[in-house]
Amino acid sequence: MSERAVIVGDGAMGTLCAHMLAENGLAVRLWSAFPDAAAELARTRVNRRFLPEVRLDERIEITGTDAGLFDRADWAVQAVPTQFARGVWGRLAPHCPAGLAVCSVAKGIETGTLLTPTQIVRDVLDGRADSDRPVAALSGPSIAPEVAEELPASVAVAATDDALAERMQRAFTRPYFRVYTNPDLPGLELAGASKNVIAIAAGILDGMSAGVNAKAALLTRGIVEISRLAEALGARAETLSGLAGLGDLVTTCFSPVGRNRSFGEAIGRGQSPAEALAATESVVEGAATTEGLLALAGRAGVEMPITRAIHAVIAEGKPPADAIADLMKRPLKAEA
Amino acid sequence: MSERAVIVGDGAMGTLCAHMLAENGLAVRLWSAFPDAAAELARTRVNRRFLPEVRLDERIEITGTDAGLFDRADWAVQAVPTQFARGVWGRLAPHCPAGLAVCSVAKGIETGTLLTPTQIVRDVLDGRADSDRPVAALSGPSIAPEVAEELPASVAVAATDDALAERMQRAFTRPYFRVYTNPDLPGLELAGASKNVIAIAAGILDGMSAGVNAKAALLTRGIVEISRLAEALGARAETLSGLAGLGDLVTTCFSPVGRNRSFGEAIGRGQSPAEALAATESVVEGAATTEGLLALAGRAGVEMPITRAIHAVIAEGKPPADAIADLMKRPLKAEA
Repeated sequence: MSERAVIVGDGAMGTLCAHMLAENGLAVRLWSAFPDAAAELARTRVNRRFLPEVRLDERIEITGTDAGLFDRADWAVQAVPTQFARGVWGRLAPHCPAGLAVCSVAKGIETGTLLTPTQIVRDVLDGRADSDRPVAALSGPSIAPEVAEELPASVAVAATDDALAERMQRAFTRPYFRVYTNPDLPGLELAGASKNVIAIAAGILDGMSAGVNAKAALLTRGIVEISRLAEALGARAETLSGLAGLGDLVTTCFSPVGRNRSFGEAIGRGQSPAEALAATESVVEGAATTEGLLALAGRAGVEMPITRAIHAVIAEGKPPADAIADLMKRPLKAEA
Repeated sequence: MSERAVIVGDGAMGTLCAHMLAENGLAVRLWSAFPDAAAELARTRVNRRFLPEVRLDERIEITGTDAGLFDRADWAVQAVPTQFARGVWGRLAPHCPAGLAVCSVAKGIETGTLLTPTQIVRDVLDGRADSDRPVAALSGPSIAPEVAEELPASVAVAATDDALAERMQRAFTRPYFRVYTNPDLPGLELAGASKNVIAIAAGILDGMSAGVNAKAALLTRGIVEISRLAEALGARAETLSGLAGLGDLVTTCFSPVGRNRSFGEAIGRGQSPAEALAATESVVEGAATTEGLLALAGRAGVEMPITRAIHAVIAEGKPPADAIADLMKRPLKAEA
């Protein structure tokens, strides 16, 4: 009997996970929040909107039905965007067995609660963000269309216990998709969230034609300040320098696609944050995350000059050139 | 009386240093190994070949004369490419005062000796790579034409003593050029050298159109393996994740200019390493450095799978696609 996985969410990552897990011989059920979308996907086998590169194998079961969704499932994948996760899992909660393991492939921090995706799932299903439900998170540089074309990618997976992390590692590993385990689940999720903030800043620099030197320094110093926050929150600084932090940040900062970077680029070109936000059709995770990180930093007493500067630009209307000049003229100091 | 600095080498970095130090009010003397080039530069004030973006202030003294070069100098800058440093400093040695401080802005490891630029200077001037001459190194993401246009850049400087590091920090800091001190001179120089190896690999991936995910993973895992070597050699892993390591690596991997990346790109497109080398008119530091790093790794007993794979491609003719496939199919493991 093959392992049975349920994918919750039919965006690019959800669709990609369904495809890869099925290739690895798992019995896969892919769930869409929208019955119409599920029916069309079941008929065409191609997710035209989010991942047109992949044709889904006939063995993948596609459904828009909530009842019985998790029947016989060994584990589930949380592939819904962070800000929608609470609503979706709330809807599915009556059908979800106690203790079912959930692996998140989403990134971000929930606005208001400051919870990460695995914490949201636990909070909704178990009533406590720190319940003892086994959870995992897979993160790293994995732009979905590239993976769909079997271009090489490497990512990291962390979990509440080593056995689950290794189970996810085996389930997701493909010849073109290398999965490392990582012992630091909080750090891994914080990395995935915070890189979106730096991505906005990288976009701003792009929009201003500030050059590659500036972007490289932003990335390096950005990782330093996020690592500082991570350590204050009990995570490991190395996780932030790993695939889920630095690695993902590099793709986000240099791939021309990506909502957070594009949002920043529009601001760098002179649009107001409100105009730039209105021009994107989807969620800009990083904008919400900036508030979240500053709130966490305030609680932990950690200085985050870059994040604060980004906040000043996107939430307080500070001109980007002034923000850069202020960052550059801070008192001289040591690197670490 | 203003501080007096002598810049040895009229390449892009040497010319840029002369310009910035003069802007900061230092009395600057810029030396070229070629009297004709010095005469032309003194006349035109523009380094047409290496840094046409800058017009050198009339107060900068330009010379091709060895005798008296260091008269009244407070310190000197080593701005000659690493593989030529021994010859140049050997020529200048009879004129160089004992104990004159030297700050290197070059990157690399000398083929054969495996010495870094400050070690070469000490070896040549004092007969011992570990002499007690005060030396410093300035390194980080600082593509010269961008800095010349006053686009923002941040770099790090390390020295044999804190006072010298802070003196260099003050001398080089400009409103557009932020200098951090760093306590780890060996790590800083190793970072500058080893990033060229990863840059070749990044170029190979570009040439193969392997995607941004692959490049981000290369960068992340590349820093991990170089950090491992650095720690084994007594340097600090953090230095490799800092401006001189990660920061410089990001510029080198993503800026379209850059000999090391371009050399790799030609190989990725299908040229043989010999053809690719013949097509570049200047030194490909990274090719020599790959041998050097593997020699150091062998001595220290450190595993460097990516560096070894690059060596297999550029020195043993292994097809890049095979090298990538072999890297991807290694046994599954943990990230750190």
